[in-house]
Order: sequence, then C-alpha cells, then structure tokens
Amino acid sequence: MNSLTIVGPDTPFAVLDHAKLLQNILRMRQHIDRLGVTLRPHIKTAKSVDVANCLFDDVPGPITVSTLAEADAFADAGYTDMIYAVGIAPHKLPHVLALRARGVDLAVLLDSQEQAEAVAQASCEARTRIPAFVEIDCDGHRGGVLVDDPALIDIGRILDSAAELRGVLTHAGESYFADTPEALAVAAENERAVAVTAANALQTMGLPCPVVSVGSTPTAYAAVDLTGVTEVRAGNYMFFDLVMAGVGVCDIDNLALSVVVTVIGHRESRGWIVTDGGWMATSSDRGTARQRVDQGYGMVTDLDGVPYTDLIMSHASQEHGILTIRPDSAAVLPSLPIGTRVRILPNHACATAAQYDKYHVIHLTSAIEDARPATIDAIWRRVNGW
Amino acid sequence: MNSLTIVGPDTPFAVLDHAKLLQNILRMRQHIDRLGVTLRPHIKTAKSVDVANCLFDDVPGPITVSTLAEADAFADAGYTDMIYAVGIAPHKLPHVLALRARGVDLAVLLDSQEQAEAVAQASCEARTRIPAFVEIDCDGHRGGVLVDDPALIDIGRILDSAAELRGVLTHAGESYFADTPEALAVAAENERAVAVTAANALQTMGLPCPVVSVGSTPTAYAAVDLTGVTEVRAGNYMFFDLVMAGVGVCDIDNLALSVVVTVIGHRESRGWIVTDGGWMATSSDRGTARQRVDQGYGMVTDLDGVPYTDLIMSHASQEHGILTIRPDSAAVLPSLPIGTRVRILPNHACATAAQYDKYHVIHLTSAIEDARPATIDAIWRRVNGW
Repeated sequence: MNSLTIVGPDTPFAVLDHAKLLQNILRMRQHIDRLGVTLRPHIKTAKSVDVANCLFDDVPGPITVSTLAEADAFADAGYTDMIYAVGIAPHKLPHVLALRARGVDLAVLLDSQEQAEAVAQASCEARTRIPAFVEIDCDGHRGGVLVDDPALIDIGRILDSAAELRGVLTHAGESYFADTPEALAVAAENERAVAVTAANALQTMGLPCPVVSVGSTPTAYAAVDLTGVTEVRAGNYMFFDLVMAGVGVCDIDNLALSVVVTVIGHRESRGWIVTDGGWMATSSDRGTARQRVDQGYGMVTDLDGVPYTDLIMSHASQEHGILTIRPDSAAVLPSLPIGTRVRILPNHACATAAQYDKYHVIHLTSAIEDARPATIDAIWRRVNGW
Repeated sequence: MNSLTIVGPDTPFAVLDHAKLLQNILRMRQHIDRLGVTLRPHIKTAKSVDVANCLFDDVPGPITVSTLAEADAFADAGYTDMIYAVGIAPHKLPHVLALRARGVDLAVLLDSQEQAEAVAQASCEARTRIPAFVEIDCDGHRGGVLVDDPALIDIGRILDSAAELRGVLTHAGESYFADTPEALAVAAENERAVAVTAANALQTMGLPCPVVSVGSTPTAYAAVDLTGVTEVRAGNYMFFDLVMAGVGVCDIDNLALSVVVTVIGHRESRGWIVTDGGWMATSSDRGTARQRVDQGYGMVTDLDGVPYTDLIMSHASQEHGILTIRPDSAAVLPSLPIGTRVRILPNHACATAAQYDKYHVIHLTSAIEDARPATIDAIWRRVNGW
C-alpha cells in the first residue's frame, strides 16, 4: 500500500486525487460520446479552471456555469461557450452583455415572460441579441415552465422577436433522490422526453430550437437513448461524492475529493475520536441522511483512501469533528493516536469543495507506479463568490 | 420606513448592519462588566479585524480564535492576547511558537496527557514555556476531561513542569439546545461550577490556575453570578441568528447579519418564490430544525429588515432558494416581482458568514437619522481558511 506523504499544508485541507479525477472525466466523456451528443460540463462543483482544463483535449470546450463570477474567470482562461444555468435576474444583464462584448457566447436561462421581456429589452438597448434558453420543468424539482404551459410559446415568441431563442433546457433534479437503476432510467427518459416535447412545441409554432439541453450526473449515466437531445450537462461526476455513491452512479473508490483532518482527542467512554475538521471543513451538508445509508458528515479513510470499517464522522461543530462507529455495527474503533491524519469522504462534493478556496492535488497513481510516496505537487484555485 | 439602497454588489451578498452590531457588542460588554470578569470575545463567527475593532475602545483586547489563520491575521492587526480554543494538534506547535516569537501571547488548549507531553516537549526544544489550558467537559458536548478524572491533575503537572499551566477552559456547547430561561440558568451555573471545581482541584494539588475561562453566548447571558470565573468567551452575540433567537437570548430584530438575494421566478401553483440565493448563499445549516420553530434556511425580510409574515426560505439548491409560507400559516404569499431584493436572516451566523469572504456593511441607523437611504459604505474582509 502506498503511503501518502503530505508536505506543507495544515489540516484541514481539501485533497483532489488527480488520477481519480481523470478517470471520472474519461468515463463521462466516453459515455456521452457513445450517446452521440455534446457534453457541456457544469463547472459549479469544481469551480476551477485547472480542473476544467482536464475536460478538453486542446481547446476550451462548452461549459455550464452557476455564477457570473465563474463566467468571468473562465472567460479570462479562454472559454468562450457558456450557459449561465440559473434563472436570470434582470440586474445581471449588463454583466452578461459585458461578457458577450468580450467575445464570450454566454447564453442565459429563464422561465417567465417578465424575464424574456427584460432580455429582449436589454438586447434592443445594446443593439444585439442575447441568446436565451427556456427552462423546462421536467420533475417539479425547482424552476421551469411546464411543457404544456402556453407560456412556453409566449416566452419563445418574445425571445425570437427581439433576442435569440437558443433552445430549451431542463434538469432532472429529482433524480438525486432516485436509488434504483429502474428509477434512474425512468428519470433519464422523462428528462429527455420532456425536453424534446418542449422543443417540438416551439418548432411546431414556427419557432427555432437549435439546442435541446438536459442534464444531471445521475440521468446522464442512466441515459441509453438521447434522441432529440443535443447536449448533456453534468458536473458532480468529476469528483463524485457519497450521495452519488448512494444513488448508485459511482463506487466509493471513485471519489476524487476528500478532506484531510488530524486527530486531536479521544473520548473512549463514548466511542469518540475527535478531529480538527468540523463543518467548516466538510460543510453542514448531510445529503446521505435521506438515503438508505446515512454517512453522517462523511466516511473516514486512511491517507491512502482505504475506509476504516464502519467509521463515519457523525457529529460536527465549527472546528471539531467526531468520528464514531456506525450505529448497529460490531466494528471496533480503530486506534488513531493524536496527530494521526485521516481523510473524510464528503456527502456532497459541491458543498464541501465550497468550504475551500483551493485544492491540494495529489498524483497518487503515478506515485504508485514510481514506488514513491505521493506528494502534493499542485495547488489549484477555486472561483468562489458571485 | 427607511428604504435601503444598495449600490454595486450583485446578489447574493452578506450584509452586516453596523448599528445592530454595535448594539449587540455593547449589550454583552455591559453584561459582562456587571459580572465583574474579563470578556474575551471569540472571533470565530465574525472572523474580521474590522468587526473586532468595534469590540475594544482603543487598544486591541483579549480574543479567542478558532484557527491559526485567524491568529496570524489578528497578530498582523496588533492583537497580542489570544487563546486558540481548539484542542492542539502537535504538528501545529511550530506555528504557535512562531506566533509567540512575534510577541503574541497565544495560549493553546488540550485535554490529554499526549498533547500535554507534546506541548512540554515543544516548549523545552524552543527554550520557552507555551501556555496551555486544560479543557474541561462540563456537559458532554465535545472534548475535555471530566472534572473528577485523575488525568486533570496529571495533565496539570506535565504542563506546570515544562510548559505553563495557564488555567482551565470549558464551553457549555449543550446550552445551544436549551430553550427556557430555567434551562439556560442551569447550564450557566453548571458551566461555572464545573470550571471552578476543576480550578480548585488543580490548586489543591499545588498547581497554578490563574485563569478560569467559561463561555458560550447563551450561558454568558444566562449567568447571574460568576464567582471563581475570571473570563467569559462568546462570539455569536455580535451577529446573533435564528438559533439564538430560538434559544431566547435575542430578538429577531437584533440579528446583524443577513443575506441579500434577488427574486428570479415564481411557481404560483406550488406557492413558491424562487431566488438566486441557495445553500451557497446561506450554508446548509438548518439549526432551527431542532427548535420549536423551524425557520427553514432562514426568515425572509424586506430590504429594511421587516419580516414578511410567515415567509421562510424552505428549500435550497446550490444557487436557488425557494421561499414559501410556513406550513399551517394562513398568511398569503407576498407579491415579490422578479428582480425584487429581499434579505434572508440566517439559522446560524457562523455558517452563513463562512460562505463569504467579506461583509457589506450598512449604517442604517445613521441613515435614518439623516433621513436618507442607507447605503453600503464599507466592505470588511473575513479571515477564512486555516
């Protein structure tokens, strides 16, 4: 077994396993290529130009962003094809126009006539046509117009007349709560069918709909046929997390992101190991609490990434984590003396990563090949904020 | 009613009401002065030198820090009296020594003989005496030795022989789950009594215990007699939050921190208002879920801070919040057109603030006096990370 040597950073810090990252990226790329559509990775999880640069062979490809701060940073890095996939607030349109004036083909998202009118007006005033997607609600998760809502056509007409109707976009957010292959397959086919029906509705009325965009990590993997879809968005797949493992779209061994913490105490009478990583290090996200296996604030592994049997981070305060054996397990609390470093695998990579401004990148696979300890040899910055 | 004009920042952003901050700071200062002990504010909530500078009249006073990054930043700002109130990991001792070499009287915390030996060894090697507190467990919340554990004396002896036994420190973490004045009074008296008993146990054995440190915002306010205690630590009181209001130590109107978000959509059939502020803007902390009134991800107010009747942020994804009327309320969803800005009052100020690298500071009170709209006229940086 390789022994991970970590030079420099104090705990807690976020480690990104470069080899797992590349494997995860390749797996999705090959899957989407087989389905014959465009992959437009969502960079909301990684929020890192360095991670995104692993996604594309040579030239920057199409991406999805969750904030205009991401759009700015990726524009600086040469990315020119973006969807800002959060419903547009009208006051953000000058920022969108500024990015477009830089040569970035940034498209916006909306689900109301009010927003469409704002985009049309901003387009007219700027003597341009801002491209916009109509958000379609495929599963009641969040925003979007229903596919049979007459507002879909009304919005399409406003955009087509004074802005640019780029297409339709939907997100099967409820697929995160699926946990059987059958439920995931249903979610994926529903996401596709709703998006294609919406596109057809627009086209039947003589409106353009060049792009039909769907996506979530679970449905992307569950999809076997994407007829009528032109592109897939997904982002979590680069890192994966315990929620995705619970959904069944990855194994624990695929998780590329973890947090390194140090043991700072023991409460033997309670079966507790105390660490210097609390919710500030992991986030308060407890996504697996809704799943069949509640992983607490995260699973605990050694520095090589090997899980300790049934050891989870069960409690968190700001700068303290408490590690315990799962309820109902017969496993014995491992001996982890004060000063021992362990890794916490996160419930929700998007939330855990957001607690950091950088990743410490390890190249574990190459280290194994070279029979030398893995070391941190890169620090990759995140684009936080708005 | 004053109308808050916010110039500049895109939503979401964190607003700090300077007048409420000063009121909260003054209230705690006067309360602790009446009790006749030292106030050592915990800066883990605010993590801001600018906020801390509101705590002290002229010279920087004693503070409590939760990370060595905070210690570095506050040392840079002239603060020289600090307790790092997280159990010390031995690998952090060189950093502690470096701060002490800069003239910062930084004391550490520990609850095991292993840690005491590490502190003693580091002291010997550096030909100095690192001051350390023994952490006492007063309510089973987290770390600390029990007051009747012989380890207390053993740890004290190790520190006294080769480092510096500065005193005992306890934190009534369970007081956050109290919700009656009676329960809070019991928690406060227990915290005091346990700390004083521990100090007496050390002194009976001929060991020094110059400092007896207790603290949490709830117990600080519940305390009516602190005989034997020398100092109180508390941090949340500067901002307050919905959990503290639920505990009963503040009113909703005292909350100094909030998040400004923009309405980006409506789902009338579901009774939803959608905003551009998700858990990235508020954190996933749902501390009030355990209280009598579950505030969701936060209460919703207008920009002046006046709550909308029974409107809460009930759901969150990364960059989307959903506002709904509380279950069982007869209130009507307010009319908030797309583009409307509202404020979200947080469950847990420590966690919500941690989603930001800065505060936008408003001086609402002075604006009211001047009969002009309040504006943001300061940006105060936070010290995030470790």
